[in-house]
Amino acid sequence: AYHPGRHLLADLYDAVRLTDAAEIEASLKEAAQAAGATILMSHLHVFQSSGGVTGMVLLAESHISIHTWPEHGFAAVDVFMCGEARAEAALEVIRAALGAGRMVVRREVRGAELT
Amino acid sequence: AYHPGRHLLADLYDAVRLTDAAEIEASLKEAAQAAGATILMSHLHVFQSSGGVTGMVLLAESHISIHTWPEHGFAAVDVFMCGEARAEAALEVIRAALGAGRMVVRREVRGAELT
Repeated sequence: AYHPGRHLLADLYDAVRLTDAAEIEASLKEAAQAAGATILMSHLHVFQSSGGVTGMVLLAESHISIHTWPEHGFAAVDVFMCGEARAEAALEVIRAALGAGRMVVRREVRGAELT
Repeated sequence: AYHPGRHLLADLYDAVRLTDAAEIEASLKEAAQAAGATILMSHLHVFQSSGGVTGMVLLAESHISIHTWPEHGFAAVDVFMCGEARAEAALEVIRAALGAGRMVVRREVRGAELT
């Protein structure tokens, strides 16, 4: 049965540690665990030009994604989780890991018409 | 330099062909090409329990993601593209591939405060 998904779109400004893919991947996995979600796989890519990182953790409950622009101190993070997973807890782990000075979050419900 | 990202959140109802991971992966790649985006990698997972598919195409311009619930004829699709990539064109390819009877799209700008 479908449980409507919570989708958090977080824009993180004045962030740091935006180029270390291994550290970012560890943070995303820690975030998934904090949410009580089940990790299926993860993949991160580093852009040689800018040092920016783009990546994804696929979850049984949907996904966490990140795209960073270190030259702007900016990261776009998505936490999309269905069921009982705690999306807000996951986002707090990532915000702390990136030391974001400011975070703008939009909270959307996916599949709302299935309820 | 950062070009603000367009992020389309599409909820597709009354959709079909939601269990064929190979076909869905081909559609996502075709969508990326229609947008003029550059594919970095893709990964799709099939849930044995429901036949649902969850997956992702990472792009140089950000990502396309999909999560399907075949038992509800529902798919949640994200098209997040920075720069000049044509996100709307990508979404139309996916909608057509899934034969969605109805699609609800929210259009968000990511990193708006960097402009």
